[in-house]
Amino acid sequence: MPSVSERLAAEVVAIAADGGPGDNADRAFSRTCLDFVTCALIGARLPVTKATYRAFAATDPGRHSTLIGSGLRMSPAAAAFVNATAAHGLDFDDGHTQAGGHPGASVFPATFAMAEHLGSSPAEVIRAVVAGYQVMVRVARMMHPHSARTGWHNTAVAGTFGATAAVAVLHRMKADQIAHAFGLAGSFAGGILEFLAEGPDSKRIHPGMAARDGIACAALAAQGLTGPREVFEGRHGVFNAFIAGAGDPGALDTPGIAIETAYFKLYPCCRHYHAAIDGLLDLRAQIRDPMRDVAEVRLGLYGVAVRGHDHKQAATMLSAQMSAPIAAGLALVDGGVTVPGFAPETLERPELTAMINRVETAVDATCEEEYPGCRSAHVEIALTDGRRLETRIRDPRGEGANPLADEDLDIKFRANCTPLLGAARAEAARGLIWNFRQTPDALGSLLGLLAPQSDGE
Amino acid sequence: MPSVSERLAAEVVAIAADGGPGDNADRAFSRTCLDFVTCALIGARLPVTKATYRAFAATDPGRHSTLIGSGLRMSPAAAAFVNATAAHGLDFDDGHTQAGGHPGASVFPATFAMAEHLGSSPAEVIRAVVAGYQVMVRVARMMHPHSARTGWHNTAVAGTFGATAAVAVLHRMKADQIAHAFGLAGSFAGGILEFLAEGPDSKRIHPGMAARDGIACAALAAQGLTGPREVFEGRHGVFNAFIAGAGDPGALDTPGIAIETAYFKLYPCCRHYHAAIDGLLDLRAQIRDPMRDVAEVRLGLYGVAVRGHDHKQAATMLSAQMSAPIAAGLALVDGGVTVPGFAPETLERPELTAMINRVETAVDATCEEEYPGCRSAHVEIALTDGRRLETRIRDPRGEGANPLADEDLDIKFRANCTPLLGAARAEAARGLIWNFRQTPDALGSLLGLLAPQSDGE
Repeated sequence: MPSVSERLAAEVVAIAADGGPGDNADRAFSRTCLDFVTCALIGARLPVTKATYRAFAATDPGRHSTLIGSGLRMSPAAAAFVNATAAHGLDFDDGHTQAGGHPGASVFPATFAMAEHLGSSPAEVIRAVVAGYQVMVRVARMMHPHSARTGWHNTAVAGTFGATAAVAVLHRMKADQIAHAFGLAGSFAGGILEFLAEGPDSKRIHPGMAARDGIACAALAAQGLTGPREVFEGRHGVFNAFIAGAGDPGALDTPGIAIETAYFKLYPCCRHYHAAIDGLLDLRAQIRDPMRDVAEVRLGLYGVAVRGHDHKQAATMLSAQMSAPIAAGLALVDGGVTVPGFAPETLERPELTAMINRVETAVDATCEEEYPGCRSAHVEIALTDGRRLETRIRDPRGEGANPLADEDLDIKFRANCTPLLGAARAEAARGLIWNFRQTPDALGSLLGLLAPQSDGE
Repeated sequence: MPSVSERLAAEVVAIAADGGPGDNADRAFSRTCLDFVTCALIGARLPVTKATYRAFAATDPGRHSTLIGSGLRMSPAAAAFVNATAAHGLDFDDGHTQAGGHPGASVFPATFAMAEHLGSSPAEVIRAVVAGYQVMVRVARMMHPHSARTGWHNTAVAGTFGATAAVAVLHRMKADQIAHAFGLAGSFAGGILEFLAEGPDSKRIHPGMAARDGIACAALAAQGLTGPREVFEGRHGVFNAFIAGAGDPGALDTPGIAIETAYFKLYPCCRHYHAAIDGLLDLRAQIRDPMRDVAEVRLGLYGVAVRGHDHKQAATMLSAQMSAPIAAGLALVDGGVTVPGFAPETLERPELTAMINRVETAVDATCEEEYPGCRSAHVEIALTDGRRLETRIRDPRGEGANPLADEDLDIKFRANCTPLLGAARAEAARGLIWNFRQTPDALGSLLGLLAPQSDGE
C-alpha cells in the first residue's frame, strides 16, 4: 500500500503532467499571484524584511534570484527566504481556512526563486504553484487543528512540504524522488506558535524557512538522498512527533484543486475578525459621524478569535494586527482597515484610542457553534441617540463561500502597488499576471517590473 | 524571573567573557576537535556528503568557508551543512550520554564556517565551541528522554540551539540578542527520528540543518529580529510543542563544562553496543581461532539497545551500523570494528555472515536496570570445546566514567587520517589541534592541512 507521502507524490506528478489542471487553475494562479505580489511588494519595505535581507546578504554572494520590491539578487535559498518574509510580513497574504495557514507566502517565493534559476516556462511555474498549494493544504488538513493546539504553526510545518512539492515540479522529479523529498521535508519541518505570546518577529520568517527548505529538500532528493517512506504515519513520523498520532490521512481524499479555495484578505490583520470588520463597515454606512454617534461596540466572535485577540493596546505592529478592538476602531474611525492604519504613529491618534475603548469582544454562542466550519461574527453598535444597529456575517469577504471578484483583487493590488510602482509599471505587472501562461519570459518580465522606480529611502 | 533562554544566554556570555573557561576547556576543545576532524575527513568521502555538496553547490557561489577533506569553498551556511553531514556520516562522531545526542557534528561546522568568515581568533573559536556544547547539552538534558520517545532527534533539535550559541559567541553578541537568537532557534528546530525505520539518509543531515540554522538564527538576531522570550517554557514553546510540557529546566543547574563530558567512539556504529564490542574484543584475546572455536555468542543489553538493533541483515551501511549482531561479527572475525568493516562489499564475506548468525541479542536485567545511567553489556561466548567465556562491561571505552586517553584519540586520528592526508600533513594537523590557542591563524592553517593531497577518485 502506498504511504501518505507516496500518495502525495503521485498527485504532484499528475499535476506536473503535460496539460496541467487547465483554465480554472490558470485563473486561480493569477488571483493568488496578484495577491502574493501585492503583499510581497508592501512587505519588502518593512524593517523585518530588510533586517532579514541584511542577515543573509553578509554571506550570500548569489545572483540567481530576484528580491521583489528591490531588484537585488541573491542565491535562490536566500531570495526565497527574504521574499517569503516580505509576503507574510503584514498578515495580509492569502490563506486557507481548512488548512489553518498561509500557502502563498512559502509556495510562491520558493517557486519564483528556483524557476528564475532553472529558466522554467510560464506553464511550469503555474503547475509548480498549483502543486505547492495542493500539498501544503493536504498536509495541513491532515494535521489541523491538532497541530495548532499542540503549538505548531501550520504555515511553517505544512508550508515546508508545499514548497518542496513546488520545487520538485520545477526539477521535473519523478514520483519516487518526490516521496524522498517529502521524507527529508519531515526532518526540516518545524515552527512553533510561541510568537502568539508577545508578537515577536519569529512568525514573519516561518514561510521563509519553509520556502528555503523546500528548495533544499528537492535539491537533496534530486541528488539521491533518501528520506523515510512513512514520514507522516511512521512510528517516529510527523503525525506522532508533532501531534501524538492524530493525523488524518482521510484528508488526502478531499476533492478539488486546493489553490481554487484559498481565501484573500481585504484587511491586513488576523483573519479571525474579518467578518466583524465587514459588518462594522456595513453598519458604518448608516452612521453620520462615528466619533460623535457611536457609544458602544460589541463584537461577538468564536472563542479562538477572542482569546489572545482582545487586547486594546499594542507595543508592536504585529500585536496591533492581532487585536480585534484595534481593527474595529480603525474600521469605524477611518472607514477602512489599511496598512498605514496599523503603523505605530497612526495608532497613537487620540480619536482612535477613544474609539478602541468603546469596543468590547465576547464569545457569541452561534459563532462558536459554526467554527471552524466558518469564521462568523455578530456586530452590535449602540448609538448615542439610543438606537442599536446590528448584523451577523457568516463568511468574511474573500472566503470560498463569499469570494472576491477578480476586480476586488485588482483593487487591492492597485491600492497598494500603484503608489510604489507608478501606474504604468503597476498596470503592466497586473496585465502580465492575468496573462501569465501566454507571456514569453513571464516571470523574468514580472520580476523586472516589480523593482520600484525609487526605493523612497 | 529570567526565562530559560535568558539563563542560557547569560551562561553563553560568561563563557565568551575574556579568559574563558581555562586550561581544562582547552584540552577538551583539542580532544573534541581531533575527533571532529577525524570524522569529517572520512565522512567527506561518503556518497551522502558528496550528494549534499552537489545539492547546494548548484546554487551557492560562496567562497567564504572551507569544506574539510576537499578544500572546496562555499558560503558559511552551505559549508556548515556539508561539513556537518560529513562529520555525522559514519556515526563515529562524539556524543553525550545524558544528552542522548551528538554535539560536535553541529557545533564545530557552524563555528568553523563562521569563524573563517569573521576572522575569529583561536581563543574565540575555542570559546564558541565550548559555549555550543554547553547549550546543546543543556537543552538536550532538559528534554531527554522525552524528546526521543516522542519522536525527536536530540542531535537535530538541541543541536540547533548549540550551533546558535557558538555562532553568537563569534558575533560577540550581548545576552539580550542571544536570547532572541534562541527564541528564533525554537522556530528553526526540528528533526524526526523516523530514519530509525529503514535507515534513510535523513539522519545524516540533521547536524547539517542544525549548523546551518545556528548561523541563520545568530545572523537574524544580530540584525534585530526578535524571538519569543519563553521559547522553551511558554504555552506554545518548545517544551509544550515537542514533548507535551515535560521539559525540565532543572538541568540548567547541572554543574561543570559539558564539553569535558562528551564521549568518544572507538567503533563507527551505534553507541548502544560499544560495551558489548569492548567485551567481545577482551574475550577474543583468549580464543585461538574465532571462526573455528566460537559456537555461540549471547549479547545481553538494555531494552533500547536491543529493539531496532537486533537485525542480522542490512540493506544500507547505516542499517549495518545500527545492528549489534553485525558489529559483534566484525569484532570477532576482524579483531576490530572499523569503517572499512561496514562497507557493503566487506559485509558480504561468507565467514562474516556465518559469525553474525551465531550471535543472539537479548535484554539483560542488570543492563536494563543500569540504563540510562550507563550503557552496559553482558557478553557470553560458548566455545566449540564446551568452554564458556563471559564478561560484563559497565561503561564502554570513551565514556566519562571510562575515558579515552589523549593518546587513544591520537590513534583514532592517525589510523583514519594518515591514509588520507599522508603522515606529514596528518602530524602537522594533529600538532596544531593540540596547540590551537597558541597557533596564529590556527583555523586557517588547520583547514589548509585538511585538503587531501589527492582525492583518490
